[in-house]
Amino acid sequence: MRVRVVGLGLIGGSIALGLRDRHDVAGYDRDEGARAAARARGIAVVDTLDAAVPADAVVVATPLAAVVPTLRALAPRAGDAVLLEVGSLKADVAAFAETAPAGVRIVGLHPMAGGTASGMAAADGALFRGRPFLVVVTARSDERAMAVAGDLARDLGGSVTVCSPSVHDRAIAAVSALPLASAVALEAVARAALPMPFASVAGTGIRDATRLAGTPLELALPLLGAPGLREHIASLRERLGEIEHALGDESALRAILSARKD
Amino acid sequence: MRVRVVGLGLIGGSIALGLRDRHDVAGYDRDEGARAAARARGIAVVDTLDAAVPADAVVVATPLAAVVPTLRALAPRAGDAVLLEVGSLKADVAAFAETAPAGVRIVGLHPMAGGTASGMAAADGALFRGRPFLVVVTARSDERAMAVAGDLARDLGGSVTVCSPSVHDRAIAAVSALPLASAVALEAVARAALPMPFASVAGTGIRDATRLAGTPLELALPLLGAPGLREHIASLRERLGEIEHALGDESALRAILSARKD
Repeated sequence: MRVRVVGLGLIGGSIALGLRDRHDVAGYDRDEGARAAARARGIAVVDTLDAAVPADAVVVATPLAAVVPTLRALAPRAGDAVLLEVGSLKADVAAFAETAPAGVRIVGLHPMAGGTASGMAAADGALFRGRPFLVVVTARSDERAMAVAGDLARDLGGSVTVCSPSVHDRAIAAVSALPLASAVALEAVARAALPMPFASVAGTGIRDATRLAGTPLELALPLLGAPGLREHIASLRERLGEIEHALGDESALRAILSARKD
Repeated sequence: MRVRVVGLGLIGGSIALGLRDRHDVAGYDRDEGARAAARARGIAVVDTLDAAVPADAVVVATPLAAVVPTLRALAPRAGDAVLLEVGSLKADVAAFAETAPAGVRIVGLHPMAGGTASGMAAADGALFRGRPFLVVVTARSDERAMAVAGDLARDLGGSVTVCSPSVHDRAIAAVSALPLASAVALEAVARAALPMPFASVAGTGIRDATRLAGTPLELALPLLGAPGLREHIASLRERLGEIEHALGDESALRAILSARKD
């Protein structure tokens, strides 16, 4: 397949690296430095968004705010190309797809992997191996477009679940936005409570538990707009209140700890 | 040094494996199966607690509830041996040390590493490399005993910070107990909120954020007795309330996210 990747940060760069052995891959980024970095990693690069088509698939991997504008720019000349985008929330793409020209093909794709590092320098073709991918149906998804999305996800080593945009965004609220909010709060409280420097005592436990607090601002801000997050944070506070209340009561703590799932 | 390790689980086993190239190491566990597992990993084993002395250092790595009883059993015949223990909280050891015979030497040692796996089978001599160690002074710590604790911590690849039992326990409340409580609550809420199976969508983010929720019950229960934990959970709920309140207000969210430390 001719695959074009628009946006050569951590995710776009990793997709380009992960697909280039099996597909005719080229990347584009509006930033010249990002294009040079991609070239240095051996990725073919085109110098304009226009040159990303014709193609069989164009993967839009820009920051979330640029996803719909990029799809809008690509749509009139997409031809047979399936337009994919890997944004962390899908409501805006779903709304755009409703109004897109009838012949355009748009499918959401969300690899559940990443990191707090960003940019082409951190890109890794193996980033998505063994990771879940959500493939998200829009009003402009047909069977062929869904098959292309599934094939690319599997070529990256992922396992695929298909869902609607609203189910996607609700899932992301639970597994990405809530843990982000939780990590930001936990890091602040743990550091303030510590009677010694963080590095003197921080082992793998607290570091893993607060890793998402390091999510870059431009990813973190839109994630905190996930639907239902307010209710999930309220539930988390309530659940923490139950643990707080159970402290000192061994049988109550046992009951809470025994309800954990592995 | 003649080093004896009492309690051959994940931590004791890893200490024995990590020290045996530089020291004369032998282990003891009251469970015959654990002793056999240690022998199978090439660790010399003695068959009674009595046989753990004479030694230069005895590292008590039993479950927390057994630490003081084991120290009490060892104290009368410890001779010149420095008694170390790696329990996750130090208040009880500190109280015991106050009343221990004058000649006994007791120092707390706490490697900030571990995992949700347990037992000799998961033991790893490299577990502590690059990790912080807290070395905890008691009423029965002298200069030689502190030096022995520091030497063993460094031989395991750790970096040492010395503190009092109360500072230790307050630090653990912040970096171990609070993240445990937070992970237990987060896992429950995230799973309940998910509109699809956990495995379909759980990437590294949520898995790392909730890893401590898998802490074995026998470690988790005593940790939740850490001093100040109630107040820390209350602070965490408050901080989460601030994030909840800021949702939808970009400048407020920016301020919260910008206060993060890396």
